[in-house]
Amino acid sequence: MPLLVVGSVAIDNVETPSQRRDGLLGGSATHFSYAASFFTDVRLVGVVGEDWPAEHTALLARRGIDTSGLVTVGGGKTFRWTGRYEPNMNDRETLDIQLNVFGEFNPQLSDDYRRSEYVFLANGVPALQLRVLDQVPGCRLAVADTMELWIQTTHADLMTLFKRIDGLVINDSEAKMLADTENLVLAGHRVREMGPKFVVIKKGEHGAMFFSEHETYVMPAFPTEKVIDPTGAGDSFAGAMMGYPAQHDDFEPRALKTAMAYGILVASFNVEGFGLERMQQISRDDVELRMDAYKKMLTF
Amino acid sequence: MPLLVVGSVAIDNVETPSQRRDGLLGGSATHFSYAASFFTDVRLVGVVGEDWPAEHTALLARRGIDTSGLVTVGGGKTFRWTGRYEPNMNDRETLDIQLNVFGEFNPQLSDDYRRSEYVFLANGVPALQLRVLDQVPGCRLAVADTMELWIQTTHADLMTLFKRIDGLVINDSEAKMLADTENLVLAGHRVREMGPKFVVIKKGEHGAMFFSEHETYVMPAFPTEKVIDPTGAGDSFAGAMMGYPAQHDDFEPRALKTAMAYGILVASFNVEGFGLERMQQISRDDVELRMDAYKKMLTF
Repeated sequence: MPLLVVGSVAIDNVETPSQRRDGLLGGSATHFSYAASFFTDVRLVGVVGEDWPAEHTALLARRGIDTSGLVTVGGGKTFRWTGRYEPNMNDRETLDIQLNVFGEFNPQLSDDYRRSEYVFLANGVPALQLRVLDQVPGCRLAVADTMELWIQTTHADLMTLFKRIDGLVINDSEAKMLADTENLVLAGHRVREMGPKFVVIKKGEHGAMFFSEHETYVMPAFPTEKVIDPTGAGDSFAGAMMGYPAQHDDFEPRALKTAMAYGILVASFNVEGFGLERMQQISRDDVELRMDAYKKMLTF
Repeated sequence: MPLLVVGSVAIDNVETPSQRRDGLLGGSATHFSYAASFFTDVRLVGVVGEDWPAEHTALLARRGIDTSGLVTVGGGKTFRWTGRYEPNMNDRETLDIQLNVFGEFNPQLSDDYRRSEYVFLANGVPALQLRVLDQVPGCRLAVADTMELWIQTTHADLMTLFKRIDGLVINDSEAKMLADTENLVLAGHRVREMGPKFVVIKKGEHGAMFFSEHETYVMPAFPTEKVIDPTGAGDSFAGAMMGYPAQHDDFEPRALKTAMAYGILVASFNVEGFGLERMQQISRDDVELRMDAYKKMLTF
């Protein structure tokens, strides 16, 4: 099944303790799309400015990603983000952020896109995420991401959103803030009770946790000593986690668990290079090889 | 096979965000022994003062732990530790520490104990750990713990120790300090190259990692929302992790992996109560039930 994603498309500058790279193809919807494209057809909805390099769109199109929903605003500039990672490669500081055309983003889906049954609402204002949901009445699996800013500033809209989505994918600090507890297991249960049928908490180098009414589980990250740039790891995780169910048109508990594992593995590739560099070097076969190793690791 | 442990026996005062408990039976060798006693015969070597309550020894003896190596120093006082946990229940502050008789601890093993083949050197001065090793020439599996203080103050002795032990069990911050890197996978490999045949890195709520020449794996913690007192979790982990190989007289890679899982599960019980309270409520059957759930959690 085609998988629709709505979110940011950006140009990133990334500084790590050892290197700095400018002008990287970034954004939540971009990383999500690329990861999901290993599994299913992807429909990318986003907005860029006139400064957006055509080669970036070409790169996505070569992966078979449908970029017809990527709107270019005449006279506008693309969303730009500059960040610096701490030596632990987990904490980061935003040095500069320019929303530009993304600040006025108000996606209007085509008739074809409105029939999407698998939808991911990448991080964005909850009101915007709700407007997208309104446009996909036949959606069967709607999953959203969010961030601390929206938890703090648009809490009411977020709670409305939570009651309308099937799944929520957030990171550990967001879960703790939402649930007002330092215990992640408790946080997962509490956030699920706010509305989503299931909640996934991403823990970075420590893996991810899953919470539904009947299931609670944790899966570790794939151990890699090559962490070059964590930007987009969470979006890559979500891309594979949504791509697998869409590929098989199956989001039963069993499929979601396998999907979690794919999310973890694809994210483990994503961090091995700047931007999408490492992702461009791998194939689905590489993902399957790592899956074999991962399953073996978890068997005893 | 009998399992020998040499380490601290203490009286703890523990403060958490919601409660405070004084006079708890504590110490690394104590938590280790109790956890290991679910699997095999345990020989506890430690030292206490005249203030040591006989009921504490009785409690250990009821678990079948051999306490003949627990020496009471006349006129002395038992090692006392007072600590306070942060709201995250992971970071803690030592409010007061009185080494007392443990400061002069110089264990002399009985002839019987000197024939031990499974030995755990709980956290202590490396010079003392080395003197214990000298007394167990027939030891086949020697595993040690250490702490940041010894990494910083007795580095040379620690490196000597590393070359003589089979395994090292440390926590994540100690591994990062030893290896001078924030990447735990890299840290595990580097510490192993310092001498131990295998290295286990404990990550608290995030589980544990294993590193040997041919294997690297991560296992998640068992998800529990009931974290009452984490004191002794690492020692409980080590107790089960050593107890299982001793029980089966098998420390091949396959057995060590199962042992890691038992370590994680027994530690998950330990944190569910103050001191040894929760541990006293469970049986090996409870551990097996949790093992079934854990294996199911890791299967997809």
